[in-house]
Amino acid sequence: MEALHVYDTTLRDGAQQEGLNLSVSDKLAIAGLLDELRVDFIEGGWPGANPKDTEFFERAKHELTLEHATLAAFGSTRRAGSSAAEDQLVQALLEAGTSVVCLVAKSHVRHVEEALRTTLEENLEMIRDTVSHLVAQGRRVFLDAEHFFDGWHLDRDYALRVVRTAHEAGAEVVVLCDTNGGMLPHQVEQVVTDVIASTGARVGAHCHNDTGCAAANSVAAVRAGATHVQGTVNGYGERTGNADLLTVAANLQFKLGLDALEPDAFRQAMPIAHAISEVTNVPAYSRQPYVGASAFAHKAGLHASALKVDPDLYQHMDPSLVGNGMRTLVSDMAGRASIELKAREAGLDVASRPEVVASVLAEVKALELQGWTFDAADASVELMLRRTLEPGCTDYFEVESWRVITEASGSGEAISEATVKLHADGRRTVATGEGNGPVNALDHALRQAIAVAYPEIEKLELIDFKVRILDASHGSDAVTRVLIETSDGETSWNTIGVAANIIEASWRALVDGLVHGLIRQGVPIR
Amino acid sequence: MEALHVYDTTLRDGAQQEGLNLSVSDKLAIAGLLDELRVDFIEGGWPGANPKDTEFFERAKHELTLEHATLAAFGSTRRAGSSAAEDQLVQALLEAGTSVVCLVAKSHVRHVEEALRTTLEENLEMIRDTVSHLVAQGRRVFLDAEHFFDGWHLDRDYALRVVRTAHEAGAEVVVLCDTNGGMLPHQVEQVVTDVIASTGARVGAHCHNDTGCAAANSVAAVRAGATHVQGTVNGYGERTGNADLLTVAANLQFKLGLDALEPDAFRQAMPIAHAISEVTNVPAYSRQPYVGASAFAHKAGLHASALKVDPDLYQHMDPSLVGNGMRTLVSDMAGRASIELKAREAGLDVASRPEVVASVLAEVKALELQGWTFDAADASVELMLRRTLEPGCTDYFEVESWRVITEASGSGEAISEATVKLHADGRRTVATGEGNGPVNALDHALRQAIAVAYPEIEKLELIDFKVRILDASHGSDAVTRVLIETSDGETSWNTIGVAANIIEASWRALVDGLVHGLIRQGVPIR
Repeated sequence: MEALHVYDTTLRDGAQQEGLNLSVSDKLAIAGLLDELRVDFIEGGWPGANPKDTEFFERAKHELTLEHATLAAFGSTRRAGSSAAEDQLVQALLEAGTSVVCLVAKSHVRHVEEALRTTLEENLEMIRDTVSHLVAQGRRVFLDAEHFFDGWHLDRDYALRVVRTAHEAGAEVVVLCDTNGGMLPHQVEQVVTDVIASTGARVGAHCHNDTGCAAANSVAAVRAGATHVQGTVNGYGERTGNADLLTVAANLQFKLGLDALEPDAFRQAMPIAHAISEVTNVPAYSRQPYVGASAFAHKAGLHASALKVDPDLYQHMDPSLVGNGMRTLVSDMAGRASIELKAREAGLDVASRPEVVASVLAEVKALELQGWTFDAADASVELMLRRTLEPGCTDYFEVESWRVITEASGSGEAISEATVKLHADGRRTVATGEGNGPVNALDHALRQAIAVAYPEIEKLELIDFKVRILDASHGSDAVTRVLIETSDGETSWNTIGVAANIIEASWRALVDGLVHGLIRQGVPIR
Repeated sequence: MEALHVYDTTLRDGAQQEGLNLSVSDKLAIAGLLDELRVDFIEGGWPGANPKDTEFFERAKHELTLEHATLAAFGSTRRAGSSAAEDQLVQALLEAGTSVVCLVAKSHVRHVEEALRTTLEENLEMIRDTVSHLVAQGRRVFLDAEHFFDGWHLDRDYALRVVRTAHEAGAEVVVLCDTNGGMLPHQVEQVVTDVIASTGARVGAHCHNDTGCAAANSVAAVRAGATHVQGTVNGYGERTGNADLLTVAANLQFKLGLDALEPDAFRQAMPIAHAISEVTNVPAYSRQPYVGASAFAHKAGLHASALKVDPDLYQHMDPSLVGNGMRTLVSDMAGRASIELKAREAGLDVASRPEVVASVLAEVKALELQGWTFDAADASVELMLRRTLEPGCTDYFEVESWRVITEASGSGEAISEATVKLHADGRRTVATGEGNGPVNALDHALRQAIAVAYPEIEKLELIDFKVRILDASHGSDAVTRVLIETSDGETSWNTIGVAANIIEASWRALVDGLVHGLIRQGVPIR
């Protein structure tokens, strides 16, 4: 909400995280999810600095429709000794076509002199020139003052001159950055208070988590008068990460009573944070505040019995406000309820069959220990329920054997070829398929072999394929989890396979995906 | 150090973490590591409450020799309506034989009345009686006042009476616990200040991370006068975890200038934290403050150019003080400086070869657009540098062809078999390998084929394997990225492969991993 800016930089500063590499499509998908969260600003990247970010802003113009959030482009002040009007990177910022531009500038005297290698006066001129040029071009300008807190401690007067220069040139917000992340909350409070009193500028905070205090520092800044907070979803970022935007927003909203995000959007916080971690492929952190899978999970002992008396005595807030839920790890009530819900969704009557629920729950729990993930594979759970309710009802075909060969000569491109042998409708079928990978080849062969008895299979398509190596402490002993999404052109469903052999895990998920598609179409077993 | 108690509760409160299950031997091993860290107190568990903790204290008497730390036993005040001298759990605390006992007591009126189901007066009497009984038996007593902050907000007078009662009965420290973890630093500061001013007791803090502020809250407590901090290594604990003891200690030591741990012990912080995560089998968190693998890793190109000038401008402290080190990551954000730094790390002289840096930079940027991620694959960047500096210098062998077959009958387990044909040292070699997956089989075959000319390969081992499907919007067109970690038993390195075919991507990363290992050993091309 505009009175307090919630500014997301997952796509720019978050992408600095070790091992995190986002494609342009990933970035567009995350921007859409951030808009669902109703953050105020989404920093998309640095146009002109690398081809990927330039492409992102080009594609965003046509492919990204934001309902609430405003897209911002990030860039730096012009080079020393030139003019903003002639600077190519400043021009690229304008060409990105966003209404908001966030400029990074130096505010620490040693960084100006030793890293930027220019004079203190020229640095101020670069800020003045670039901000006023962009404002003249109709942009709202936010200025990220890099290394501000360290700079303030070294030379307060110069740091304040940077803020005044940006403010007077028309920057709407001056964002004080703890770039190296070494601050503690009382230090942030002192500096923010001083800057506001000395300059009258609107102030923001950009914190990193190197002292484990990024969330606390952001809150301290707001308590001292900052009205703009920057952060990243799931705290992604270089080193120890940026301030976790959801933790900061939740602290402001639920602990300080401020309006950070709309309450209805906040109720989606956990699923959105998890959806973003699916896109980044960084496993969700179960101990993450507010939205972690364990954040409201209680273990046995002192608490368990008392929890029944009044749950509010044992949790700091109602977890549903952030889309999370309380779990008690000793109880399997949550599990039973999920399975009953799943059955109801699939139109299966388990009300009179408690033993089916118990058996499926036991199977799910045993499989989860091996690396299954219940939530991500609805269709596999549904198949398990159907097989338990009515054994044989999913046996559309019987597999005799399958094989896939991948080969390459020299350093040439590899080719995969698969053969599947199966029995269906009283016939034995042998089919061969090629593909640009082993799973693709298996999919082609399997589909052909099934089509002989079930031509309805033609409608189905494998549309997504995800792999995660679990427990990878020794490569050869690792267990692989494969998630496959299959579509019939209208809806889609997810199946899972877990095995030591990545191809076997893929095969299991493939078979379940196709069988589920046949059931969904109401195809009878032949 | 005694002026400021660093009190570890990894073995008791940390063990409440979801999925964490410690054997008695695990607990003894962790206690030994905590002693190396030179924490002041190690809370070993709750004797009498469960057989495992009783056994721990028995075995500790004979098997655990602590050089610095003092072992503490945890337990609760006596039951309502009895006497401490007759209470079996209090007796078990004495039998544990520790010089320090940490008692948990209620300080929140609703918890006394609704969870403990006794009167407010009887609760105070339970505290007085139990503390004085244990003190009379020669124990140093610390009192954990549960739900203290919430209790203080609900009924300050009663909360303060609890502190006074414990203090007057002889408790050395009264530890204010944010049991539900909902506090922010300014609230902690307010309450700690009030308690010290109102009671004169020595105060400690026990924080949980539900607002992401456990470290900041612990620091705020110390700034307000607390002289005892509790936490767990790696922040283990129920829900979002306890305060991370090393983050708290490092903040106190390096940011506030207090004596938390001995400097020589602090230099072991990272290896000890990682050794403890090996025992708990909870993967180390790379973004953990101070001791995480990424805590001092730099990615941004913006920074790398200046890092060369003065690393201290870009890090909040010297990482060696906590046993960590600075690393630079190469990525599409990187400029020339990152590549030069990487070359220097590998001992390669590129100062006189600017065209090599430019060529490698262009290659990195182009490949990253296709899905490579170099920050996670140092060894691949180094190989690229070497090949550009001296073409042919990595050509240990020439691959003629490779093939891998994965097959299964019915629903049986799959088997993988690979064949590799290559030329090295003037000979043609054909080798076959089996494995529990296609990459494992290829690794076995490739290693055998190389070993004919380069027996040095035997030392190398594939230790980690990660797969990511990039741009998976249509399964069959997706690009796969594989990261492989190879070890020579002493160090390890990461290589990358990207291809449409998952097996081809794996093959490329495998080959680079082994070639890098040969170079590292100084093996000449034969």
